[in-house]
Amino acid sequence: MLPITPEQITQWIQESVVATQDGTFQVVAVRPLEVDCLLPYHPYQIRAGGTLSGPTMMTLADAAMYAAVLAHYGKQLLAVTQDFSIHFLSKPTAHDLLAHAKIIKAGKRSVVLTVHLYSQQRLVAHATGTYALPR
Amino acid sequence: MLPITPEQITQWIQESVVATQDGTFQVVAVRPLEVDCLLPYHPYQIRAGGTLSGPTMMTLADAAMYAAVLAHYGKQLLAVTQDFSIHFLSKPTAHDLLAHAKIIKAGKRSVVLTVHLYSQQRLVAHATGTYALPR
Amino acid sequence: MLPITPEQITQWIQESVVATQDGTFQVVAVRPLEVDCLLPYHPYQIRAGGTLSGPTMMTLADAAMYAAVLAHYGKQLLAVTQDFSIHFLSKPTAHDLLAHAKIIKAGKRSVVLTVHLYSQQRLVAHATGTYALPR
Amino acid sequence: MLPITPEQITQWIQESVVATQDGTFQVVAVRPLEVDCLLPYHPYQIRAGGTLSGPTMMTLADAAMYAAVLAHYGKQLLAVTQDFSIHFLSKPTAHDLLAHAKIIKAGKRSVVLTVHLYSQQRLVAHATGTYALPR
Repeated sequence: MLPITPEQITQWIQESVVATQDGTFQVVAVRPLEVDCLLPYHPYQIRAGGTLSGPTMMTLADAAMYAAVLAHYGKQLLAVTQDFSIHFLSKPTAHDLLAHAKIIKAGKRSVVLTVHLYSQQRLVAHATGTYALPR
Repeated sequence: MLPITPEQITQWIQESVVATQDGTFQVVAVRPLEVDCLLPYHPYQIRAGGTLSGPTMMTLADAAMYAAVLAHYGKQLLAVTQDFSIHFLSKPTAHDLLAHAKIIKAGKRSVVLTVHLYSQQRLVAHATGTYALPR
Repeated sequence: MLPITPEQITQWIQESVVATQDGTFQVVAVRPLEVDCLLPYHPYQIRAGGTLSGPTMMTLADAAMYAAVLAHYGKQLLAVTQDFSIHFLSKPTAHDLLAHAKIIKAGKRSVVLTVHLYSQQRLVAHATGTYALPR
Repeated sequence: MLPITPEQITQWIQESVVATQDGTFQVVAVRPLEVDCLLPYHPYQIRAGGTLSGPTMMTLADAAMYAAVLAHYGKQLLAVTQDFSIHFLSKPTAHDLLAHAKIIKAGKRSVVLTVHLYSQQRLVAHATGTYALPR
């Protein structure tokens, strides 16, 4: 079986999540249990203080978890977030965000993941979450 | 001092968060330590399975917390999310979402809040979070 | 069928969790989807500053969730915590703690709960968590 | 200045937290921003199913965060947990637990940390949390 490519996963997510169809979010690398994703900067993401909004970071972290689930389990588009938790560490300014998602438990019913978000090589947020797999 | 109106808080949030300037998100009621917010349904919010996406709910929950902070502390636009946690309970279909945010600790440096999200009178998600106040 | 009594649930928890066999933790009330639990004060619970330690509160919150699960589903001793999250709101001094646990999603595979912890009628912590039910 | 030793931090924690005075919990290694801690197995930690209880793991994770804070900031015994979140990944059987705590944000007012818990070289839980520093 051919390995799943970053482009393939990006396309699956666009197929699943209407909001990603603007084509900005993309999976850039896939490794066993891990993916890297990119969210290019857009002025739409800004909030008071000139930093990227919390929901921008949460949305990227959740999409990166979804990408890691699809990379590991295949095209399970009906996998859904069960719980999600994030700590914001420092305020990212107007630049691209990079997400590194990692599966720390690959169960049959659920998947637990961590995500590190980086802005200009600096860790700006850390998220954890559980995805429930369709039966 | 006149009480802060829902319209005033909605306007402050639009001033602070670029993404809310489409005018869909709105604060609909303000009570001591509590606010109610509305996110009208839009096809953009849909994901595989025909339900509202996780980030749609997270974004609403975070905005509702922000609204509760502004309602209680006044125009502190630089208040920022420090941590955020959500459990998804059932899948909301293509309808408006209502958020009920409540301050459970109103500190000097930080604020702790809970949010209940409803779709058609049904509890669909429960979030908790901390906002840090500007010094 | 007779309703399950607080004493019965307390006894089940003592049967399940060795650490509760000192007999201090007790379920004091059972209502549909809800339980109230009591942890009497003991000097063992104190930490620097003369307040109750975080793990004391986490342990009570987790036990209260377990009690709510047993009250709702019957003697499912193999139900286990899947995720647990807590915010500490104010520091409880050397007094009894009361926990109010509530099921907000009673699923077939998992249960989501909230817990409010009180010390002398004051809310001191708020927890959320998921219990996984045995198959 | 001499570096702070694992023994010193263990002693500070025993001084601060009454429940650690049984001498079982110990800090075993200190590195920049990181500590390793050990909780020897004791039958008291067991719950139904023959596995270690959730509160046993939560207590260890919280103590390991505290140890990392003391290792980095010095004897700040009044640092307190502000929020704490944990995902249980697999059930540890009757063996010692190892905790690896890491500071991911070393702020002036608060510290954000992650903890990985291991049983026999296997990752059994992942926690995140915030400690508030005394002013």
